[in-house]
Amino acid sequence: MTHPLRLAVIGLGSMGLGMATSLLRAGHVTFGIDRNPDAQNRFAEAGGAPGDLTEVAGTLDAVVIVVLNAAQTETVLFGPDGVVPKLRNGAVVVACATVAPEFARAMEARCADHGVLYLDAPISGGSVKAAEGALSIMASGTPEAFAAARPVLDATAATVFALGDAAGAGSAMKAANQLLAGVHIAAMAEAMTFAMTQGIDPETFLDVIPKCAGTSWMLENRAPHIVAGDYTPHSSVDIWPKDLGIVLDIAKGVKFGAPLTAAALQQFLAASGSGLGLEDDAAVAKVYARNAGLTLPGQS
Amino acid sequence: MTHPLRLAVIGLGSMGLGMATSLLRAGHVTFGIDRNPDAQNRFAEAGGAPGDLTEVAGTLDAVVIVVLNAAQTETVLFGPDGVVPKLRNGAVVVACATVAPEFARAMEARCADHGVLYLDAPISGGSVKAAEGALSIMASGTPEAFAAARPVLDATAATVFALGDAAGAGSAMKAANQLLAGVHIAAMAEAMTFAMTQGIDPETFLDVIPKCAGTSWMLENRAPHIVAGDYTPHSSVDIWPKDLGIVLDIAKGVKFGAPLTAAALQQFLAASGSGLGLEDDAAVAKVYARNAGLTLPGQS
Repeated sequence: MTHPLRLAVIGLGSMGLGMATSLLRAGHVTFGIDRNPDAQNRFAEAGGAPGDLTEVAGTLDAVVIVVLNAAQTETVLFGPDGVVPKLRNGAVVVACATVAPEFARAMEARCADHGVLYLDAPISGGSVKAAEGALSIMASGTPEAFAAARPVLDATAATVFALGDAAGAGSAMKAANQLLAGVHIAAMAEAMTFAMTQGIDPETFLDVIPKCAGTSWMLENRAPHIVAGDYTPHSSVDIWPKDLGIVLDIAKGVKFGAPLTAAALQQFLAASGSGLGLEDDAAVAKVYARNAGLTLPGQS
Repeated sequence: MTHPLRLAVIGLGSMGLGMATSLLRAGHVTFGIDRNPDAQNRFAEAGGAPGDLTEVAGTLDAVVIVVLNAAQTETVLFGPDGVVPKLRNGAVVVACATVAPEFARAMEARCADHGVLYLDAPISGGSVKAAEGALSIMASGTPEAFAAARPVLDATAATVFALGDAAGAGSAMKAANQLLAGVHIAAMAEAMTFAMTQGIDPETFLDVIPKCAGTSWMLENRAPHIVAGDYTPHSSVDIWPKDLGIVLDIAKGVKFGAPLTAAALQQFLAASGSGLGLEDDAAVAKVYARNAGLTLPGQS
């Protein structure tokens, strides 16, 4: 392996924890930071390096940010306890949240003011691939940022798409991917419940459609949750008002009409508004089922 | 092979011609019928059996209907020159158009009045698989209808989904598949042009998304047409106002709200209304591009 680095992962949710664990496994000294002390302690017990971020920041080679959104990213980078002003010259921020391309460009510029490199590096693949170190990363940034982040990418990703030499392109591709993923989950729910109105049960639907032209990655991944009646949140409903909202904000900024994205967003808002926000995103099917008087598997 | 049958294929468009050719190749005596004499003559020259449908109808084992919609299906079965009253007892109609389940059930009942079997047998897979005899067929009907149609299924399909013992279920599954397929084509166009507004060219989009969670069968099949600027109609824009219209008619009948389907239909209507109806359905991207002031590959 390459020379072990000193790293911090900020944000130990399902994705961040998986990435931090992959970095440990690759031999890097990895500090795990989370505002939830339980999450932080669990990672420390699993081999995470001990110590306070404020004290160790100046010794770090890279900081990997795996928080929920742009606001949290900005807070951990430049808030009252922000890490960037404490980093050494040439350290790299690897920013993994789904954010607007414009935001990524602004963060890159503000990091540069502190002599810190910035890799726009949104991730895709889910918590299982995060734990395996087999994510897809849609990255853009300067050659120097790529070089500094290379050991992080090597330990966490199966596929790195190098999308350009400035922040923004990575986030733009991630937004396009999320547009599709969100629309496809809602479309899966719409089609499966539509089929139920015609007497086709979800299991038969799942037997047939993956072998036909109507299939999608999301259908094959999420439809089994509905068939099993299992809404354990691998990825929750509440991700989608956030991510499709980012897509529509970007779209509005360039006067781009995105009617399917807008329609899918409404379905996820209805799911979240009716109390399903923390369930698996396949629970958007419950909105369709309720509206049509259908009973999904596992519902009574 | 099984004992050769005497068959007619009514409707020699890209799908019907491929199926008729596959039936010939399997050794069946196959009459090809089309209201376009050129299409009918081309198939006769390619080995199709000679003769007039009215004269040969009483000798046929099966009639395969590969027309555009329910109205054409009803005309060829029961119109002024309808074939069903001329068929022998126990012959089977294999009905391949995308129609409402209710229509399929009505046709099954009317065929039964004439002692004729009916297999509800919508097809999926496109013209290339039709020519290879490798379609997916979503079939439902009585065991007698399946038995009588078996040699036709064997010669034309790689996969036959047996969805129940009465007409309707096959058409219902096909409608659910078309819902997904139509939404996914429009979503692909929406995402690809959205990405273009952020500086991501279609070729890069196509390099990345098929390896990510946002992919779909339709994206991988149709996005290359846009990248190549080639709108040769493998499946035309005008299919979608028809098929998504069928989905929404069925949905309305059971008071099922289908907002993504409705949004996708609007995009295909805009494509058709602006003169793109006979182009490949990937041309729905031109609606998005025009509305956003973008130039797609191959456009000047």
